Amino acid sequence: MAKIKKTPRPKAETPKGFRDYFGTEVTERKAMLDKIAEVYHLYGFEALETSAVETVEALGKFLPDVDRPNAGVFSWQEESEAGKLGDWMALRYDMTAPLARVAAQYRNDLPAPYRRYAMGPVWRNEKAGPGRFRQFYQCDADTVGAPSVAADAEICAMLSDTLEAVGIPRGDYIVRVNNRKVLNGVMEVAGVLDPADPEKFEAERGIVLRAIDKLDRLGEAGVRALIGEGRKDESGDFTKGAGLTEAQADIVMGFMSAKRDTGAQTVARLYELVQGSAVGAEGVKELETIADLMAAGGYGPDRVEIDPSVVRGLGYYTGPVYEAELTFEVLDEKGRPRNFGSVAGGGRYDDLVKRFTGQEVPATGVSIGVDRLLAALRAKGRGGQAEAGPVVVTVMDRDRMADYMGMVTELRAAGIRAEVYLGNPKNFGNQLKYADKRASPVAVIQGGDEQARGVVQVKDLVLGAKIAQNATLEEWKDRPSQYEIARGDLVTKVRDIIASQNEG
Amino acid sequence: MAKIKKTPRPKAETPKGFRDYFGTEVTERKAMLDKIAEVYHLYGFEALETSAVETVEALGKFLPDVDRPNAGVFSWQEESEAGKLGDWMALRYDMTAPLARVAAQYRNDLPAPYRRYAMGPVWRNEKAGPGRFRQFYQCDADTVGAPSVAADAEICAMLSDTLEAVGIPRGDYIVRVNNRKVLNGVMEVAGVLDPADPEKFEAERGIVLRAIDKLDRLGEAGVRALIGEGRKDESGDFTKGAGLTEAQADIVMGFMSAKRDTGAQTVARLYELVQGSAVGAEGVKELETIADLMAAGGYGPDRVEIDPSVVRGLGYYTGPVYEAELTFEVLDEKGRPRNFGSVAGGGRYDDLVKRFTGQEVPATGVSIGVDRLLAALRAKGRGGQAEAGPVVVTVMDRDRMADYMGMVTELRAAGIRAEVYLGNPKNFGNQLKYADKRASPVAVIQGGDEQARGVVQVKDLVLGAKIAQNATLEEWKDRPSQYEIARGDLVTKVRDIIASQNEG
Repeated sequence: MAKIKKTPRPKAETPKGFRDYFGTEVTERKAMLDKIAEVYHLYGFEALETSAVETVEALGKFLPDVDRPNAGVFSWQEESEAGKLGDWMALRYDMTAPLARVAAQYRNDLPAPYRRYAMGPVWRNEKAGPGRFRQFYQCDADTVGAPSVAADAEICAMLSDTLEAVGIPRGDYIVRVNNRKVLNGVMEVAGVLDPADPEKFEAERGIVLRAIDKLDRLGEAGVRALIGEGRKDESGDFTKGAGLTEAQADIVMGFMSAKRDTGAQTVARLYELVQGSAVGAEGVKELETIADLMAAGGYGPDRVEIDPSVVRGLGYYTGPVYEAELTFEVLDEKGRPRNFGSVAGGGRYDDLVKRFTGQEVPATGVSIGVDRLLAALRAKGRGGQAEAGPVVVTVMDRDRMADYMGMVTELRAAGIRAEVYLGNPKNFGNQLKYADKRASPVAVIQGGDEQARGVVQVKDLVLGAKIAQNATLEEWKDRPSQYEIARGDLVTKVRDIIASQNEG
Repeated sequence: MAKIKKTPRPKAETPKGFRDYFGTEVTERKAMLDKIAEVYHLYGFEALETSAVETVEALGKFLPDVDRPNAGVFSWQEESEAGKLGDWMALRYDMTAPLARVAAQYRNDLPAPYRRYAMGPVWRNEKAGPGRFRQFYQCDADTVGAPSVAADAEICAMLSDTLEAVGIPRGDYIVRVNNRKVLNGVMEVAGVLDPADPEKFEAERGIVLRAIDKLDRLGEAGVRALIGEGRKDESGDFTKGAGLTEAQADIVMGFMSAKRDTGAQTVARLYELVQGSAVGAEGVKELETIADLMAAGGYGPDRVEIDPSVVRGLGYYTGPVYEAELTFEVLDEKGRPRNFGSVAGGGRYDDLVKRFTGQEVPATGVSIGVDRLLAALRAKGRGGQAEAGPVVVTVMDRDRMADYMGMVTELRAAGIRAEVYLGNPKNFGNQLKYADKRASPVAVIQGGDEQARGVVQVKDLVLGAKIAQNATLEEWKDRPSQYEIARGDLVTKVRDIIASQNEG
């Protein structure tokens, strides 16, 4: 048999744009997902988990960046039976496309309306950058088959409840609601939408939509440039604009700044702006209904508000759109304060299921960017604390491993996280260094002498570290951090020490 | 602007070999993963979540099916900056290969030994079949950097605790332990392993290994045929064997049946079988140590036992191997009783990290097949029950949506899962059918008349269904399942009804 050729060693590297999550990074996210799922469940939403892989055909081309509809997914061609190439497959880029597929595939079995939530990673084949990853978590809730804007209102209420449930207090967030129909009404008034020929000016409207969505980043002047002739960015690159005239741009800009002090005033102003457009008036009416339902449910303007500057970049929205913004400031990488910004968004999309079935199926839903929300909580000093490690039972005598394992078994049986040191026990200093690296609260030590006397040494590592840092020699003598106790008292003593650490 | 061409409707289909999970299928798996993580955490293991995507280079070729080392993964070639093709990427096929990459990449930062657990989907590009999917969950725990077999013993104890924690009672499972070194010793005695030239007979040993791993399926005669000249299967296909002589095969078959009534007797028999092989004797010694540690920890032969017929198919194991088998019978698809079989397995692999660093890093770990374990619990009649749905507040008057949403808000604030009907409310029958499909415990009804009188109708749907099925007319009159109550008593009454349903 031929010898296998030596190949050079593979690189031990996370692929570009991907990352690994360790310890509390994993468990904190899990705790947040659990809390979100609890709220979704309370609202009657059912869990759905689709596979990470879909056919490219089913996924469709609804990626957020509509400028490049063909790019953005990780895809490959299946091998079919005879080694020939088969269907194109891809990793899902969001949770909405798989839901549309499920809603069509199981339309005879699912309850109607169908409320579902889904959480998990999605993948984007985009250029990676600092803090910009190609795999990230989404946590979505959608209602399929509910034409009433009460479904949109419910999602906004649920989004508000969810943010509070994960630890964002009222006042630190706002859910903003708008309606694409109002925007369409404004476009009609401005002369860039002809109800008799809806495809006319489609490209122009796309540019306007994405320009408004960038208001935060570009400011009013930047948006206005993009709506008009175009915009030169800081690097000197020119982006072609929608080509609207000054008068047309005025109308669009007026819409974006239509927000007034109260919801009722905003609604009144919007009615003025869409005068003459049937779809526009319908959209404002829907916003009014949502605002009424919100107010009746106790979701006042401190939690949910109408804001005409919210448009969401996605092309497929057809009615209400909403997003949740965190309103507190954080410091950016250069130490400058800035608003944390959007952590969730969604809206009504009545055409996604239709792709499959030909029948229009009304749907509305929200997606929470879990990783951003976690970052927000950390930025506010909540979470991100290292969790206490396990109790470490050290190994003084390699032949007595059974005794040491017996100790950890006892501790675990009492619900105390514990482990025996499994490295090379020869150098005892390494064992204590290990306990330190593990953030262990307590180390347990039993040599032959202690065993003969029926005792163990128990070391309070938290107190020990404190004393080592701050204490004088006298204090150190007065407050020992190591105790010799009867072997039978092991669990009680360790439990006491951990309890005192948690109080301290 | 050119009109977009009409394309045919996409098929609403899960890709071949993949499936969707609904409702309790998702939440039951999650509950099981949570329980497993709790045990792993108690043992001092830390969570690790790597990305689903790895470079093909880092993944290596360690797929279980070593007959086809190049197949079995979903892979694609990256586009690099200039549109050129770059590195090959792939979806992970297990949790061990990414761990080896992480252990090498972060070797200076991780504690040593490093105990980690990981749970999530893995992907295999294999032919799909009934009950055989191309995405499934694994739940792994591994210890990297611990040369002592105490680490293997710990994993076996943890596996036993885990199975009991998820609801497999003692007696319904057994963790079997063996050691590849013993097998190598037997190979040496049989003359198919030459310590001076370890690569000689490698292919033959691979065939022997995989043959023994198929004992369950092929029986002794089938294994013997594969070890010898070869085996013709039921379809008439011939698989070439390892070509061992009768005398050689006798030695190997003797090893597989070396299990005796007690661990001590099995160990004694194994010492006889490997006589003359240093590595064999070392392997038996390790098994003896594991058995001692198990016994001392209270993991008797009713939980963990030495079984020489366990080899595990994977080529990379270098020492102890272990697997957990469920010992109860279930009915197969044809109604015949059969043993449920293996739900978890693992072993020691000392060379996986070495691929990256050149340095040998001892490691050992287990992988639990979560989906199989769930299937086992369902086969035993545990789990798989449909969860109660939400309370459904029906819509009698479309203009009073705010009132109905107020009711569900009250119910949710009291922790009761509830939703308002969001379909077209025109046909009231559809609303009750919906509540039925949702397995709702209670429907709430309030028309204009009830509103005027300050009352609501509350319908006990579980009792209602029971009465409809079983009761005589008299009983039906005596036990009403619908109550008119004061609007202010809504939460109390609904809570009472649900409590009585849970008792019943």
